[in-house]
Amino acid sequence: MEQLVDAFQSYSEGTVTSPAGFTAVAVAAGIKKENQLDLALVVSASDCSCAAMFTKNQVVAAPVIVDRATLAQNNSRLRAVVINSKNANACTGEPGLANARATQQAAAQALGCAADQILVLSTGVIGVPLPMDRLTAGIAVAAKELSAANGRLAAEAIMTTDTHPKHLAVRLDLPGGPVTIGGMAKGAGMIHPNMATMLAVLTTDAAVAPDVLDELLRTAVNRSFNRISIDGDTSTNDTILLLANGASGTAVADPDSMARFGEALNHLCTALAHMIVRDGEGATKFVEIQVTGANSDADAHQIANTIAISPLVKTAFAGSDANWGRLLMAAGRAGVAFDQSKINLWIGGQQADELQLVASGTPTAYQEKEAAAVFAQPAFKILLDVGSGGGGTAVVWTTDLTHEYVSINADYRT
Amino acid sequence: MEQLVDAFQSYSEGTVTSPAGFTAVAVAAGIKKENQLDLALVVSASDCSCAAMFTKNQVVAAPVIVDRATLAQNNSRLRAVVINSKNANACTGEPGLANARATQQAAAQALGCAADQILVLSTGVIGVPLPMDRLTAGIAVAAKELSAANGRLAAEAIMTTDTHPKHLAVRLDLPGGPVTIGGMAKGAGMIHPNMATMLAVLTTDAAVAPDVLDELLRTAVNRSFNRISIDGDTSTNDTILLLANGASGTAVADPDSMARFGEALNHLCTALAHMIVRDGEGATKFVEIQVTGANSDADAHQIANTIAISPLVKTAFAGSDANWGRLLMAAGRAGVAFDQSKINLWIGGQQADELQLVASGTPTAYQEKEAAAVFAQPAFKILLDVGSGGGGTAVVWTTDLTHEYVSINADYRT
Repeated sequence: MEQLVDAFQSYSEGTVTSPAGFTAVAVAAGIKKENQLDLALVVSASDCSCAAMFTKNQVVAAPVIVDRATLAQNNSRLRAVVINSKNANACTGEPGLANARATQQAAAQALGCAADQILVLSTGVIGVPLPMDRLTAGIAVAAKELSAANGRLAAEAIMTTDTHPKHLAVRLDLPGGPVTIGGMAKGAGMIHPNMATMLAVLTTDAAVAPDVLDELLRTAVNRSFNRISIDGDTSTNDTILLLANGASGTAVADPDSMARFGEALNHLCTALAHMIVRDGEGATKFVEIQVTGANSDADAHQIANTIAISPLVKTAFAGSDANWGRLLMAAGRAGVAFDQSKINLWIGGQQADELQLVASGTPTAYQEKEAAAVFAQPAFKILLDVGSGGGGTAVVWTTDLTHEYVSINADYRT
Repeated sequence: MEQLVDAFQSYSEGTVTSPAGFTAVAVAAGIKKENQLDLALVVSASDCSCAAMFTKNQVVAAPVIVDRATLAQNNSRLRAVVINSKNANACTGEPGLANARATQQAAAQALGCAADQILVLSTGVIGVPLPMDRLTAGIAVAAKELSAANGRLAAEAIMTTDTHPKHLAVRLDLPGGPVTIGGMAKGAGMIHPNMATMLAVLTTDAAVAPDVLDELLRTAVNRSFNRISIDGDTSTNDTILLLANGASGTAVADPDSMARFGEALNHLCTALAHMIVRDGEGATKFVEIQVTGANSDADAHQIANTIAISPLVKTAFAGSDANWGRLLMAAGRAGVAFDQSKINLWIGGQQADELQLVASGTPTAYQEKEAAAVFAQPAFKILLDVGSGGGGTAVVWTTDLTHEYVSINADYRT
């Protein structure tokens, strides 16, 4: 399935190996049980620029510490990313750091490059030592089976409670020629608050200098992954990497190319972020929360996030109960001042016109049946205008909180 | 059952009518279905001083607006509190305010006093007009059946999703003679974040000036109800009232009496707060979270609260899964800086000695079976030292997040 979106094409079958010069591999190294894929390598045939964004949590996993140190020394000659699932290598102390470094070494040896050309990512349970014998054996085997056909398998190998692999690629024509951006991601619990790990590995065959790449990644992530996650409210392992190997021969350096590339990257990140939300643990609803009329975008984002993380709001979504009082209560506890008599609230489904539930702080004469019909849809929208008269707006995407979520998380480790 | 606690006695059968001069009544006014109690009056035979604490939510219910205005004009001649359940009279606009004022008027007429001597409390669904005909008829009937024997019935009438009434009284001897403090409360959803309404009405026959009463109430609430609730993270209706009618003839004015009275009031509030936690929607566990070693009490409170509201932590409690990695992750996203390599974590049951799970940021060689046994208990304790070297400490109390919670809240309004 191809769809033309503005000046780029989005390929749902695309992966991290869609850009030229990238290969991948996925193996069952024995970290998960029963021969499930649990180790992936994404490798570039040539050196890559790399931009990265990490969790803001005070408690960070060993691979985050090691990658930050690696990228501080080398952000222009990266070659590969090693990702294991099932074990987060977090809260594992000094031995955990040594294991992350040993993983770099093992991959460097298997791939014939230097350790500081390797980044490592882990996701899974916390506080358990990595089974290094299996991991290093797995890397040695995997390195011999690299192929551009393995992008989807790699996306499968990084899954934890995800129900399906998440990947996509976009192609676009730049003044210098065509380039491709590919990506894969894994999901994060209920997303809000996203204490479960979110990982994303993005690749491109465009030639992009590290500082430009960094700027482009930050802009795209703030409009996508950060709209499904509270700022600073992240897990021990959350990481987003963007590798650019220049294999297309096309540079992204002039303002026009940067704008076009940025737009395509934003599309890719937003699509992956939406896949994560839709596949949230136990999720049955995809909800867009839009806040307008705030004094600033930051205020609007704070209000939208507070609504999105409220267990009482999320259980109302699960029950298809258009309990808008909970939406207003959540908005009211966001720590942002507004006048409740100026609030307007609309809800809308995908096909339905918007239905106004609250006008100037007072319920309208809407029909309960109509409101319930909107909330019964698998995807719907909430639009809250807080009436502060400012131009501050924000959009966040979230899910419902279901029995299935409790089941998954009450018994995650066993 | 009586138990001697320091210098006061706590009576579990005690109620808001235990102090001299207070009567109460509860009727089925028809706001709830099927003849259930839904309207309570607590009345003093003589004028009362009154202290109050209200929600910090930006969106507040009509009764909160009306009570704030009433108390701003009169905090020394209060006579009665009218409480209805099932309907919060929140997000009801100007008509809601008129209804709250009409409720005051109806009670004033029925009780033979002025409208500004009446406070009104509501709890229940949001955005639905109060059925004023039933409410005013109920008040007229109720006012004729006031009795000191109705304290427990009043505690029943204010329940929403509570499974049992919550009340208590304490008696103490002051230099001037014996006084009694009584109280009732209703619970609040999952408590954290407490968007469902928490109401508490406290009464005493001590003679206490409004400013002294205010100081005593604030101190007690900050050590009790605010330890089961995030500061500023409250519902539209949350209200705590303390009425003092002086019927005992004993004054609380000197420092010694104030200290003793304050201690007893703190005990009463803490006991009621614990009852609310234990009766949280779907709750099966009572968990005390203690944070030490922070730079300030505020930092410690922030960390403890962030752990207490984490859905991933709360579902682990529900599953009796000693998934301590989630505790550390939640602490790490509290917005408080600390060094993860200095963290120590212990867990303890009621009978068990404390079990250390993390020492200097690294897991100890604890037995999983032992840890699971602690989390399997109906009540247990978590002690996290963040190692910042400061004397900052905090304790909060919370519950687990269960299937039952989702069931209750996915379908609350129907």
